[in-house]
Amino acid sequence: MKQILIEKNILQNNDDIASKNRQILKDKGVFTINLLGAPGGGKTSVLEQIIKNIKHNVDVTVIEGDLYTTKDAQRIEKHHVDVIQVNTGGACHLDASMIDQAFEHIDINNLDFLVIENVGNLVCPASYDLSEDMKITVMSVTEGNDKPLKYPAMFQRSNALILNKIDLIDSTDFDIEEFYKDVYSLNENIKIFKVSCREERGIDELCKYLESQINDKRRNKEFQ
Amino acid sequence: MKQILIEKNILQNNDDIASKNRQILKDKGVFTINLLGAPGGGKTSVLEQIIKNIKHNVDVTVIEGDLYTTKDAQRIEKHHVDVIQVNTGGACHLDASMIDQAFEHIDINNLDFLVIENVGNLVCPASYDLSEDMKITVMSVTEGNDKPLKYPAMFQRSNALILNKIDLIDSTDFDIEEFYKDVYSLNENIKIFKVSCREERGIDELCKYLESQINDKRRNKEFQ
Repeated sequence: MKQILIEKNILQNNDDIASKNRQILKDKGVFTINLLGAPGGGKTSVLEQIIKNIKHNVDVTVIEGDLYTTKDAQRIEKHHVDVIQVNTGGACHLDASMIDQAFEHIDINNLDFLVIENVGNLVCPASYDLSEDMKITVMSVTEGNDKPLKYPAMFQRSNALILNKIDLIDSTDFDIEEFYKDVYSLNENIKIFKVSCREERGIDELCKYLESQINDKRRNKEFQ
Repeated sequence: MKQILIEKNILQNNDDIASKNRQILKDKGVFTINLLGAPGGGKTSVLEQIIKNIKHNVDVTVIEGDLYTTKDAQRIEKHHVDVIQVNTGGACHLDASMIDQAFEHIDINNLDFLVIENVGNLVCPASYDLSEDMKITVMSVTEGNDKPLKYPAMFQRSNALILNKIDLIDSTDFDIEEFYKDVYSLNENIKIFKVSCREERGIDELCKYLESQINDKRRNKEFQ
């Protein structure tokens, strides 16, 4: 009983901080995504492709969530965008208070697009609001097409899904028809992108979608 | 502060239940593994190969941990071994009290080998003792060789590591030398098996290793 109560308090506290920061991001017109997925699905690779593609039109900052290392942040930094590393010290997800601390290091007045790359985990991060406009889940075909029904919350709560490593599909028994059916049964509004980072396939379409969202948020700011 | 205290109580409570069940498993000579890994690494596929290989010599029962579905349990059941499904209802790991409940459905007097397949998650399950003799982590080459340093607890606490989908290594940029170096830097005693379930490679060696452990545990029981 106690346990459940505490969990509620944690989530309530999280949501309060997230709401405060969501208002700031709205006022400044910063489109924000929470990039989610299992370890090794390719979140960082997808993000590198996105940055390469849109950084000339859009000011991007990345918050990198990891348990301990700075490996992903180092990869992102090579693309000459601002990166803030958040190490959770073993915790399996980012929460709003961690983002709040990262905010102190962000030049939010000169920003169009904030990407929060979460810890690799297909379960817990789904529960924590990080003030994002969109949750985007990255999963790879090598993980198997049964994942949506096995880890439903992540797919129910995501606005978009990036199906990565599509170049490897013929080396797996991934059933793409069943996959689409399962995903849409959980979330009929989710937008699915088939991507290969190695072959740079599907990146253009994904980036056009993101740029349109970024421009909408900027425009909304101007109309305020 | 409160939060940390609660977490300590949870883990203490978990360890108490695990100790009780560890004694039962010792008395009955049941070798027990906790099978861990990220979603899609191939835990269930590896387990299917193990069962096919050893079920004629060894009495196996499987506890299948999943958030909601019975998909993995259905796969295991096809191999005609006893399976107990534990659904966590959204929780990201199994804990000792869940195993305790599963125990009520196990014929422990006629058992040599108990396999607990945990929820797919490279973080949280590492913290929960389930009375196992060994933690065995399954990861696939498609997840990338950076995972040990990024998710160190799982690799530090595992007795063995199954590097799966080795048949796909040439389609990835997986650096196997760096991988071995990183894993051994975290845990110099870990035993690593390179496996391909699709091509049934490396299964014999893995099963010989497990059978030797199973026989040791049986022998220890007789000497008691």
